[in-house]
Amino acid sequence: MSYVEPAAVVDAMVALGAKKAHLRRGQLVLRGTLGGMFLGVATTLALTAATQTGLPFAGALVFPVGFVMVLLLGFEMVTGSFAVVPLAVLERRATATEMARAFWWVIVGHLLGGVLFGLLFAATASEMWTTPDAPVARALVDLAAHKTLDHQYLGAAGILLVVLKGVLCNWLVGTGVVMGLTSTRTGGKILAMWLPVMTFFALGLEHGVVNLFVVPGAMMLGAPIGLGDWWLWNQIPALVGNFLGALVFVALAMYAAHRRPAPEVAPVPAVSPRSRSVADA
Amino acid sequence: MSYVEPAAVVDAMVALGAKKAHLRRGQLVLRGTLGGMFLGVATTLALTAATQTGLPFAGALVFPVGFVMVLLLGFEMVTGSFAVVPLAVLERRATATEMARAFWWVIVGHLLGGVLFGLLFAATASEMWTTPDAPVARALVDLAAHKTLDHQYLGAAGILLVVLKGVLCNWLVGTGVVMGLTSTRTGGKILAMWLPVMTFFALGLEHGVVNLFVVPGAMMLGAPIGLGDWWLWNQIPALVGNFLGALVFVALAMYAAHRRPAPEVAPVPAVSPRSRSVADA
Amino acid sequence: MSYVEPAAVVDAMVALGAKKAHLRRGQLVLRGTLGGMFLGVATTLALTAATQTGLPFAGALVFPVGFVMVLLLGFEMVTGSFAVVPLAVLERRATATEMARAFWWVIVGHLLGGVLFGLLFAATASEMWTTPDAPVARALVDLAAHKTLDHQYLGAAGILLVVLKGVLCNWLVGTGVVMGLTSTRTGGKILAMWLPVMTFFALGLEHGVVNLFVVPGAMMLGAPIGLGDWWLWNQIPALVGNFLGALVFVALAMYAAHRRPAPEVAPVPAVSPRSRSVADA
Amino acid sequence: MSYVEPAAVVDAMVALGAKKAHLRRGQLVLRGTLGGMFLGVATTLALTAATQTGLPFAGALVFPVGFVMVLLLGFEMVTGSFAVVPLAVLERRATATEMARAFWWVIVGHLLGGVLFGLLFAATASEMWTTPDAPVARALVDLAAHKTLDHQYLGAAGILLVVLKGVLCNWLVGTGVVMGLTSTRTGGKILAMWLPVMTFFALGLEHGVVNLFVVPGAMMLGAPIGLGDWWLWNQIPALVGNFLGALVFVALAMYAAHRRPAPEVAPVPAVSPRSRSVADA
Amino acid sequence: MSYVEPAAVVDAMVALGAKKAHLRRGQLVLRGTLGGMFLGVATTLALTAATQTGLPFAGALVFPVGFVMVLLLGFEMVTGSFAVVPLAVLERRATATEMARAFWWVIVGHLLGGVLFGLLFAATASEMWTTPDAPVARALVDLAAHKTLDHQYLGAAGILLVVLKGVLCNWLVGTGVVMGLTSTRTGGKILAMWLPVMTFFALGLEHGVVNLFVVPGAMMLGAPIGLGDWWLWNQIPALVGNFLGALVFVALAMYAAHRRPAPEVAPVPAVSPRSRSVADA
Repeated sequence: MSYVEPAAVVDAMVALGAKKAHLRRGQLVLRGTLGGMFLGVATTLALTAATQTGLPFAGALVFPVGFVMVLLLGFEMVTGSFAVVPLAVLERRATATEMARAFWWVIVGHLLGGVLFGLLFAATASEMWTTPDAPVARALVDLAAHKTLDHQYLGAAGILLVVLKGVLCNWLVGTGVVMGLTSTRTGGKILAMWLPVMTFFALGLEHGVVNLFVVPGAMMLGAPIGLGDWWLWNQIPALVGNFLGALVFVALAMYAAHRRPAPEVAPVPAVSPRSRSVADA
Repeated sequence: MSYVEPAAVVDAMVALGAKKAHLRRGQLVLRGTLGGMFLGVATTLALTAATQTGLPFAGALVFPVGFVMVLLLGFEMVTGSFAVVPLAVLERRATATEMARAFWWVIVGHLLGGVLFGLLFAATASEMWTTPDAPVARALVDLAAHKTLDHQYLGAAGILLVVLKGVLCNWLVGTGVVMGLTSTRTGGKILAMWLPVMTFFALGLEHGVVNLFVVPGAMMLGAPIGLGDWWLWNQIPALVGNFLGALVFVALAMYAAHRRPAPEVAPVPAVSPRSRSVADA
Repeated sequence: MSYVEPAAVVDAMVALGAKKAHLRRGQLVLRGTLGGMFLGVATTLALTAATQTGLPFAGALVFPVGFVMVLLLGFEMVTGSFAVVPLAVLERRATATEMARAFWWVIVGHLLGGVLFGLLFAATASEMWTTPDAPVARALVDLAAHKTLDHQYLGAAGILLVVLKGVLCNWLVGTGVVMGLTSTRTGGKILAMWLPVMTFFALGLEHGVVNLFVVPGAMMLGAPIGLGDWWLWNQIPALVGNFLGALVFVALAMYAAHRRPAPEVAPVPAVSPRSRSVADA
Repeated sequence: MSYVEPAAVVDAMVALGAKKAHLRRGQLVLRGTLGGMFLGVATTLALTAATQTGLPFAGALVFPVGFVMVLLLGFEMVTGSFAVVPLAVLERRATATEMARAFWWVIVGHLLGGVLFGLLFAATASEMWTTPDAPVARALVDLAAHKTLDHQYLGAAGILLVVLKGVLCNWLVGTGVVMGLTSTRTGGKILAMWLPVMTFFALGLEHGVVNLFVVPGAMMLGAPIGLGDWWLWNQIPALVGNFLGALVFVALAMYAAHRRPAPEVAPVPAVSPRSRSVADA
Repeated sequence: MSYVEPAAVVDAMVALGAKKAHLRRGQLVLRGTLGGMFLGVATTLALTAATQTGLPFAGALVFPVGFVMVLLLGFEMVTGSFAVVPLAVLERRATATEMARAFWWVIVGHLLGGVLFGLLFAATASEMWTTPDAPVARALVDLAAHKTLDHQYLGAAGILLVVLKGVLCNWLVGTGVVMGLTSTRTGGKILAMWLPVMTFFALGLEHGVVNLFVVPGAMMLGAPIGLGDWWLWNQIPALVGNFLGALVFVALAMYAAHRRPAPEVAPVPAVSPRSRSVADA
């Protein structure tokens, strides 16, 4: 009986969110750095597969390796946190300030991890900048340009487009975290997480954490992208969309659909009946 | 021993049907909305795979991601309910009116989810309607036209064709729900559900819930399809066929083949028909 | 410890055979009908995969979906029964007459299921007979002609050829049933059953149950095959070969290789020591 | 906890070897016959996959189906016995004579199974010798010629080449047996056994049991190979290499690397060396 | 519940490291020899897949077979030890000298295994040096030249490039060892280990143990590489990078991110509170 029913999954989401909200700052940054590095290497794996086969879909089939490693090894990914920490706030097991703090330091870690892996990738993929036109290096530069300059070209509609792609993306990425909670086994978790993550990557959506590697990595390989291009036309609207997508379509949707009514008398004060009074199941 | 024997699967079908028949309206609509969105995104994933590889079969191999997520996360899919709620009625654990009500509100949710995801998809796939001829966008428009206008061209035979395709489709989709009940593990459920769902998609059959995204999504991308074309030449006959297929070839077939005879005397009053009328939602 | 040792598998084969031999006629026909339908749809899935990719092997990779669903859902397949019911007769847990009766009514069900699915397939694949040259429809017609007329051309050697192909086929199909008994888990059963069934389909052997759909389905799509061509040059010798293959290379082989010696004193009369005295392990 | 630690795997190897060494002659021949047939059909499956796709690697991906069926169903494969029976001799749970006897009768069975399946394959693949140039038939003939005549051409170096290919082959095949012992589950065993067996086939090494089908099967399809060509330039050196490879790189390697020191005082007499000499077949 | 939480994984890393640090010299060399042979054969498998399909990525998909066999069968791989033994030193369960000694003798074993398998591979792939231009033989020679002479061409930057590729490589290889500890089941371990190992191979990074086969194997096939070219421009910087990558990004990262605080009073002196005082979780 390794399958976990939806109501128990919601319990686990709340507990996981509370745990993440109370991690120490050093933990958040360190785990976020590793999280960013793993998503970075998964992106290069996907670009390698796509470049060699000529099929972007081949990249989507393998991209989830990074997501899976981050979650199984207990590192942090802010787009996953977006899907669970708000429920801890909703149930008063964390404050909104703690939530914002947790998001902030994980994002700082992602930036460190993305830039660090970006540097290692740029150096090795270009053989110390002697072959900057290597296929995977070129694919990264093209991808980064598409993610920033193409949106800039569309103006305000470009911003909205990134937000919407961010919403769709993190509906799926957040669902990946939740799918991982439907199994108590390693193999079941891997399989369950793979599905939504493969889907988002195949559809070419905007994942804020991935971009913290893609854009700086491309810049180190010579992509003509400025800091403003990066943050205004991609990074900020992508993260905003990611937050909205996970909040509405994962956190609140699962909560409203499956939250168990609170027991009349809670056995221990840690789960006070009041904190669950919003539940509707 | 994660395998569940057929007689126990029939028990689970009856229980699941009873539970679904007694969900509150808000639950039905909300879970139906999410169900519609997940089937919508799975369809776009399949179109992406098929378009990039030139093999429709590649789309069938990945389409089940949506079905699997809907079932594992406890969202609703009316084509699945078609296969289990009638058995609850048959065993007097729900009334026909409750069944019809459950189907209705889930379909309303599917329509909301299909249109909402259709809007998000149309906006992002066409880069805010600046690239309406993007391959996946075009594939969706062609698919929707095939599913409606081609049937209209055949006249009455077209209606019958949609009904028959709906029957075959939901024999397999309903079997997907039942296959999911043959395992108590997440990995086993995923694998078991994958088989019939992949099959129906590969054969190009008519799944009413999918069409609640495909047709409006295509209309937002400019497909020349009217509301009447949609509902008369596809949506209504597809759902009718879906209901018949699940009723005859899944619900009644499993019931007639494997229903255990009722025990002469129930060991505990909990098994009395009356006590079941409250349902266990 | 989900693996079941060979000696315990033989026990399960005997028990399963005894159970099948004593099913009521209605059960045999109904379960046989569903069994025939599932093998029919799996064949169309395989033809679809083979036609789109140009590789018959691709069809073999997916064909087992039907076999797996029939077994997991407890429907009947006479070629599977061939591998287990004879052991129940051998151990006096069923009579030869009961065995013949069980085979007969399941075959009647397969014929009903094959013709019913054949009709549904012919109608939908040809879009109500408006596109009879659709690739999958054409592939089915060609396959049926190969399975009947090509054998007729060879004369008596053709009959022998079908018998031999039937023997090889059902050595593998019967092994599929046995492989399913080596695991107590749904996922393990699916994987184990997949191997021999994929193998038989890849080698283009003759499976009597599949042919009860292939030939009538093709006839409804206009294949120039007569009833005599069907039964004389394919159906009867295929079923004869299937029976021999399962009897000799599965039932008797497993029995002779692994039957446990009977316990000195049986705990319950249901398993009388005498009935096991043939055992040799 | 389905994973079995290496020290326990060595225990299982010794016990399995002791059991095999004490099987009755009839069992050895019968199980060996089935073992030979399954490896034969797996080889034709691999040739079919390779021929259709033009990629020998595709054959390697599917070849392990035969190995897996032989082991899960408890049939015999002498190349597997080479990896475990010597340890039973080493621990005095069998004599060298018993070992030689067990090998001999299993090889007799393999020869029977190889020739029997070869006949069935030759008859069906060539449609009763009317289409001897069918792609798979031709592929078998070419393979057999490569395995015998090409080595003959090299003279003494050819003999050494076959021995070395046999050593490498059975290092991997024997490892397949051992990998199967690392899991207590059917699914885990299948996956674990697949890896080394796929590897040996991809590298085109020499597996004596497979050749007992390949060469006679090809001869029945007209390959110009004499009995001397077969046994001198392939069969005998291949089996010698297989024995050496399994003995040195599997049996002795695992034993030396992981054998637990014997407990000072055995808790129960059942563990005394003497009590093991009776074996537990 | 086969999933192992990160904090328990760190416990297992420390215990595994301590165990490896105290193996006897003979064990280290023997297990290292087998480890080197398995990585060698996996590399040839990957080259075979890549050569036949023309897609290097196909090689990456199958390369992990070697890594998986080494770990499941309990053989040694120094790049894996790099990720766990330093934690045993950190917790005072081994000394730095013991660590260095363990690394040294395993590397000696790898060299023996790499050269031995290299000889067997060179002999068989070239059919006793009669076909030295066989595709896989040629692919190995080209790979070895790329790994040594191309770096030499870059001068000091080439050394740094190898170190950086070694760092990235062993971040992933070390993660493979850790991923294997996240499951208690064989199937789960295989799946979990596959992901990072497939990734490193796809990215073309530098794995010191693999190179102990690749370069001498290629030299036996005639590659114009000298001992100095091998050790200076590849082997030494690769191993240095491997150690740094595993130490910083696996051992220290997991330890800092997840080490449980020591219990106030340890139940047994073997785990003295002091030895854990560095923990920070």
